[in-house]
Amino acid sequence: MYDDLPTPAVVAELDPIEANIRTMVAANARYGLKVRPHIKPHKSVFLTRLELELGCQGITCAKLGEAEVMAAAGFTDILIAFPLIGEDKMTRLARLTDQAQILTIVNSVAGARQLAQTGQSTGRPIRTLIELDGGIRRGGIQPLAPAVAFARAIHDLQGLQIVGLMYYGGTIYNEDSLEGFERVARLEQQAVTATARLLSDEGLDMGILSGGNSFAAKMPHCLAGLTEVRPGNFIFNDCNQLFAGMATEAQCSLRVVATVVCLVDSCHAIIDAGSKTLTTDLCAKHPGYGAVVGRPDICLTKLNEEHGFIESRQPLGLEIGDKIAIIPNHACVVPNLADEIYGIRNNQVERLIRIEARGMNR
Amino acid sequence: MYDDLPTPAVVAELDPIEANIRTMVAANARYGLKVRPHIKPHKSVFLTRLELELGCQGITCAKLGEAEVMAAAGFTDILIAFPLIGEDKMTRLARLTDQAQILTIVNSVAGARQLAQTGQSTGRPIRTLIELDGGIRRGGIQPLAPAVAFARAIHDLQGLQIVGLMYYGGTIYNEDSLEGFERVARLEQQAVTATARLLSDEGLDMGILSGGNSFAAKMPHCLAGLTEVRPGNFIFNDCNQLFAGMATEAQCSLRVVATVVCLVDSCHAIIDAGSKTLTTDLCAKHPGYGAVVGRPDICLTKLNEEHGFIESRQPLGLEIGDKIAIIPNHACVVPNLADEIYGIRNNQVERLIRIEARGMNR
Repeated sequence: MYDDLPTPAVVAELDPIEANIRTMVAANARYGLKVRPHIKPHKSVFLTRLELELGCQGITCAKLGEAEVMAAAGFTDILIAFPLIGEDKMTRLARLTDQAQILTIVNSVAGARQLAQTGQSTGRPIRTLIELDGGIRRGGIQPLAPAVAFARAIHDLQGLQIVGLMYYGGTIYNEDSLEGFERVARLEQQAVTATARLLSDEGLDMGILSGGNSFAAKMPHCLAGLTEVRPGNFIFNDCNQLFAGMATEAQCSLRVVATVVCLVDSCHAIIDAGSKTLTTDLCAKHPGYGAVVGRPDICLTKLNEEHGFIESRQPLGLEIGDKIAIIPNHACVVPNLADEIYGIRNNQVERLIRIEARGMNR
Repeated sequence: MYDDLPTPAVVAELDPIEANIRTMVAANARYGLKVRPHIKPHKSVFLTRLELELGCQGITCAKLGEAEVMAAAGFTDILIAFPLIGEDKMTRLARLTDQAQILTIVNSVAGARQLAQTGQSTGRPIRTLIELDGGIRRGGIQPLAPAVAFARAIHDLQGLQIVGLMYYGGTIYNEDSLEGFERVARLEQQAVTATARLLSDEGLDMGILSGGNSFAAKMPHCLAGLTEVRPGNFIFNDCNQLFAGMATEAQCSLRVVATVVCLVDSCHAIIDAGSKTLTTDLCAKHPGYGAVVGRPDICLTKLNEEHGFIESRQPLGLEIGDKIAIIPNHACVVPNLADEIYGIRNNQVERLIRIEARGMNR
């Protein structure tokens, strides 16, 4: 079905993408949650616009550079979910607040001081969420009392406006069952809402309670009381979602199309997609470097930079020149390696999707 | 020393780069070997030009797309070290032979027929090396009798000109000692030269005997009889070279500069470089995702896309805003993630180096 594409090609199937967005928005709306999608998996203006057209509200960027691209494209409600540190970042942040409604996060007094100074210099306080640790110790403040102490310590800084809490529950990806995912999502709900209540008791109102990563946002019944979720991966899904039971193969909309370029023996062959297309990211719940669509017998056992090694216990039945489609282990890192990806509908290339924020990691 | 760079920044130290090139060229010249550098680690026109100015002869590209970039920049002697398969590749190959002296590889009769047809259509036979398997079963033909049989099978194809052999001895990276590296390099030398002798007995003269990957090319005393080596990594080096004893830290010229953005506790911190800067490639001989220059106590234990997790058994002694320099595990995949990297000499940015062939994996 992808026979006419030059390979390796990254393709995005538009029908499941639209369905994935609609499903996410509708499911969260039932529990009063907005969806503020993380644009890091696709880094594309077209797909960001599609997310907003289909009901998402605001966007999340991983880095200032991504936010700059999205602000230049006209998006006005942007959360930069990374602690901004350093003079060059402050200069750019100040400039960005001219263009869009920027929200960022803070998890240190040193960082808060830098943001405050920036807000003072522009005369527009920097709107900030306090980052709570969701268990992976990535720098967030511990929920409850430590978060209250932190909020007190930075709350009076001129130029800084604390408007809410942000939580990233990364431990959910270590779980092995739906029960486990739900349990971790409920812990998130409790940590965020209980911390917000404590802060409210102090007279500090947290208007934005932002949580819900790509697994948790699929179980909004566990997140009631938060105001928004920030899933990213949901528009594509990948092996991490598929083999955790959090997506069906039909919902996995991102594929890498590769050509068989060598037959090693009846059970081993080489394709023209390697780590520079798929990355070396692994999936804890599935062996190899991706899943071959329609061929569960095939394992992508090894990647060199431009070569992929595939094998099966049964004869592959592939010829040189044949194409295979691979669901990546981790969709969020694949478009970042391309300048553009193919937007496909009904087996046709409907459009080339530019990856405008590719490589914008500063 | 990298204090003024916006981070994460990829920097290339120009003095060791020049020394690394000169050393490689001089060492191989003593054994009659040309250096045809693989441009995949840097993908840069500037660094390709530097390699040729300092004595390299011809270049190696991993993919047709890289070769197109380099031909457009005026380089005229290009080996595409990947089996080209498919109509779109043949059309582009034909176009490319208008611009430069192109050499490619073949390891299947099906592939040979496609190349032959292309050569016929342009009236210029495609100059081709037979790819020999160097032990990693990446599609090359087995040395000795199988290679002779293969050469016979394709030799009479109109439009194809077999001009030599190419060998990639990838098993060398599994070895643990200099003795092991030398042993594998000698096996390469024997396989290539013995196969060439057998072919010569058949009246098939192999003018180009191309071998010598990034480890083997550092021991040209083991490769006498080959005509050229194709190291790539040598201009940068990395943890794979450093912890195998094949490079000193001073010879590791590629670094990723990152900023400490969170202090988790006295022994744990977060930096602003993650897998979208460093990749998730591991190093078999060193734990973690890179080596922090001057701080062997620090381990880069985990990467999220934009966050790096560092830890030490002793207090880190770092402040928010401090910068660290990281030698990547695998240099060949890092510049590919950037549009440009900083060329540094004497602690100054001497130039921005564009990565023109970034992402050119088709």
